[in-house]
Amino acid sequence: MPGTRARRSDAEVVAAVRAAVVEELAEVGLGRLTMDGIGQRAGIAKTSLYRRWDSPQAILLDALQAGFPQEQPTPAPTDDLRSDLIEALRLMIAWLTTPVARATGAILAERARYPELAEAVYTQVFEPKGGRFTGTVLRHYAAAGRIDPDRLTPVVLDIGEALVLKYTLDSGELPDEQTLADIVDQAVLPAADRPH
Amino acid sequence: MPGTRARRSDAEVVAAVRAAVVEELAEVGLGRLTMDGIGQRAGIAKTSLYRRWDSPQAILLDALQAGFPQEQPTPAPTDDLRSDLIEALRLMIAWLTTPVARATGAILAERARYPELAEAVYTQVFEPKGGRFTGTVLRHYAAAGRIDPDRLTPVVLDIGEALVLKYTLDSGELPDEQTLADIVDQAVLPAADRPH
Repeated sequence: MPGTRARRSDAEVVAAVRAAVVEELAEVGLGRLTMDGIGQRAGIAKTSLYRRWDSPQAILLDALQAGFPQEQPTPAPTDDLRSDLIEALRLMIAWLTTPVARATGAILAERARYPELAEAVYTQVFEPKGGRFTGTVLRHYAAAGRIDPDRLTPVVLDIGEALVLKYTLDSGELPDEQTLADIVDQAVLPAADRPH
Repeated sequence: MPGTRARRSDAEVVAAVRAAVVEELAEVGLGRLTMDGIGQRAGIAKTSLYRRWDSPQAILLDALQAGFPQEQPTPAPTDDLRSDLIEALRLMIAWLTTPVARATGAILAERARYPELAEAVYTQVFEPKGGRFTGTVLRHYAAAGRIDPDRLTPVVLDIGEALVLKYTLDSGELPDEQTLADIVDQAVLPAADRPH
């Protein structure tokens, strides 16, 4: 009954809908995501949902975008490339433990069936936040003249993320601090920062 | 009826059983793999299966082991580290297109439910063949004094494989020749072979 509970703010409604779409995805799968299901789980009328989003997939992308972290290079003058790279990988690991990351993984695993949605994860979620963890940091130090911008190829921008993912797939666990430092010292820095 | 078809050699029987277990896995999933199902698909009595293997999982591991390639460093005196690394990644890509690789991926994706089987993939399939594509090659050149063995950490041995996997996950396609060369030139060699 309307009025039986306190009216939620816009921000609360949006947060509830974003949480609902991620839970709904985990429960019913991509193929059965509906405005009805999401609305019911969030306690919101379908007509209200349509005021802001035009499809279940739009809600899902909005939730993934909102839940994806933004890495920040340390502001000068405390510049520290190595620490900033390790911190960027820490951010990735923190994200990997969230329901939003599992939802992202579920979409990419079904890329063959939903190619446009998978593509949208890259263009609307990953790329606006820098494309790759370590990417924002590396480009910042290249712009500052600290590393050679020519070294920042797609392969080099991908090294940190690739090794974290591979470690996670192989071990079933997230890399610890020492492994993050090893990835930065033994793979990212030699490729991005070796003498030239 | 016995005798209605030509008797197969031992090697033919083994090949048929290995192919059958991979097809059966793709069709019914890990949880419903049985000696009956495999025997039926291979056209072999269950009692004959038990003569060689003691479980469906043993058959599966045998098939994955038989289908996993073995990388080879070029024999001296045509030593060429860069070419051998690229060739090792080509082997990985050729393997990734096989039904055996998809079966391996299916097991690792269900690691949480079948931890012992996933562990056995590493100890019985990957490790006997060198643990990582590029690993055999890198260790060969370290033993020959061409690169510093101290550089061959777990992270460095994983760089090539991690970047191939990441590229494949991101693009839904296998890396082409240029990408393999970039991975070797921009990531593996700087980490394994930079001046010291």
